[in-house]
Amino acid sequence: MRLPVPVRVRWSDLDAYGHVNNAALLTLLEEARVTAFWAGGPEGSPTTAIIDAGPGATSVTVIARQEAEYLAQIPHHREPIVVDMWIGRMGGASMDVCYEVLSPDQSTVYARAQTTVVMLDASTGTPRRLSAGERAAWEPFLEEPIAFRRGGDR
Amino acid sequence: MRLPVPVRVRWSDLDAYGHVNNAALLTLLEEARVTAFWAGGPEGSPTTAIIDAGPGATSVTVIARQEAEYLAQIPHHREPIVVDMWIGRMGGASMDVCYEVLSPDQSTVYARAQTTVVMLDASTGTPRRLSAGERAAWEPFLEEPIAFRRGGDR
Amino acid sequence: MRLPVPVRVRWSDLDAYGHVNNAALLTLLEEARVTAFWAGGPEGSPTTAIIDAGPGATSVTVIARQEAEYLAQIPHHREPIVVDMWIGRMGGASMDVCYEVLSPDQSTVYARAQTTVVMLDASTGTPRRLSAGERAAWEPFLEEPIAFRRGGDR
Amino acid sequence: MRLPVPVRVRWSDLDAYGHVNNAALLTLLEEARVTAFWAGGPEGSPTTAIIDAGPGATSVTVIARQEAEYLAQIPHHREPIVVDMWIGRMGGASMDVCYEVLSPDQSTVYARAQTTVVMLDASTGTPRRLSAGERAAWEPFLEEPIAFRRGGDR
Repeated sequence: MRLPVPVRVRWSDLDAYGHVNNAALLTLLEEARVTAFWAGGPEGSPTTAIIDAGPGATSVTVIARQEAEYLAQIPHHREPIVVDMWIGRMGGASMDVCYEVLSPDQSTVYARAQTTVVMLDASTGTPRRLSAGERAAWEPFLEEPIAFRRGGDR
Repeated sequence: MRLPVPVRVRWSDLDAYGHVNNAALLTLLEEARVTAFWAGGPEGSPTTAIIDAGPGATSVTVIARQEAEYLAQIPHHREPIVVDMWIGRMGGASMDVCYEVLSPDQSTVYARAQTTVVMLDASTGTPRRLSAGERAAWEPFLEEPIAFRRGGDR
Repeated sequence: MRLPVPVRVRWSDLDAYGHVNNAALLTLLEEARVTAFWAGGPEGSPTTAIIDAGPGATSVTVIARQEAEYLAQIPHHREPIVVDMWIGRMGGASMDVCYEVLSPDQSTVYARAQTTVVMLDASTGTPRRLSAGERAAWEPFLEEPIAFRRGGDR
Repeated sequence: MRLPVPVRVRWSDLDAYGHVNNAALLTLLEEARVTAFWAGGPEGSPTTAIIDAGPGATSVTVIARQEAEYLAQIPHHREPIVVDMWIGRMGGASMDVCYEVLSPDQSTVYARAQTTVVMLDASTGTPRRLSAGERAAWEPFLEEPIAFRRGGDR
């Protein structure tokens, strides 16, 4: 199962080429993760938003790896674009979050990406294991990871 | 041969965890590319800064793929950090730019990354072949691409 | 009458002090303006979103002046904060947009700000007069401009 | 006396209008302040870079007010632009930093701005008085504050 997360493109995400800048795409993915995974707010979906991360929280989530394929340029949109998320792998202390970034009407795939997120204990700064609650919450979102095209001319 | 490019970390590149944000790292890589590859300024090194890119130029450089391994958190530095760059592959209309992101004294490797850059003709928006001049300029910087660790728990 | 515009704070808007960075506040104001004033999207409120701005549009809106008073630090919020907007002055070719930036529950005033926006004709790049339609649309939102505290120790 | 601080414009500071975004200007000012005022790095000028700010420091500098006049659009530059800084007012616990933002060859004034910086004690979060050392260091940079044009059509 995938979790579609609406994310708003900002005017300043565009660079002078008139499209969302390559680094700004990662910020859009970050906002999708924060919306889906971080607990504590009234919008938190009960099944997914369970990580106690953010300022003053018990967990810190750090990024160990990130990979992105830019398939089409993202123009400015007034309506939110859709970041379709799923879990490609759950490890001991980390997981791979997968994304397809779609136009508001979901007719265009702008990008595909994958992020390895590692859970740290906020007090010690060292990795901690995914909890049983986290595993249970994310289990329904486990799907095949992205098969990236790597190498060759594109 | 590698090209060490000094890049300045900004205070606003840090997020509330007190380190350079994962997306901001890609902005630092972009600044290294602009410094090394784009022609037209007084600082342009004669052997590398030969792409006529930027606003009003004949070429547009777009990013097709990007991959980054975050090895250590990057704190604020007053001095520029060093983005050590080389070319991992030269294709017909694209090339893979490789980076090691180092602390100012080059004692710490903060990140490794690779970007596939595609050259577009600015007037048509379609890919154009690397020119003989570009190939000659970048030939000395050809080295083995990065062997990324992919998959498994980290 | 004021127009309350919900605007989402991003994780990367916070700097290493753990609060929304001073420059990022202006980005939040920009998003409120884009939402309220730019035409063309399905979310456009019929009475206000009437400027044909953005890429490929007939008008360009440029900022001539900006003033902001930072009253309280803005923490990360999962829910959108509220940018309460009104027009403090309508001139020939420009207007002053006023803002109070409020917490999601509107109990805290984080900041007050004012932006002078100038309308340019996109084809000539020169100022153009506010149209009768724009004046009629914004008339209901005319209120007293902000009385900023200026000078002295704060 | 004024202190000219070179600051590099990033490609991503430009928005889709092809010029430095209005909020990004404040980030450029912030970088000038960090370079000029924060102590601790090898580049610190002995007379000015004396505030122990940044992560883990004894002081926190917060922005209470900011005002900017945008006089000309800032294009991308390969060379650093120049932020000419001086002190417009030294109060008990705060000071007004003034800026003229100039093109690399200093022939064009892009913007004028003023920031009220308040010194906080990092441990208590409350304002602290400017020290005698700070006053002595900044005294030579005291000049008339900026006379902003306010109100009327521009």
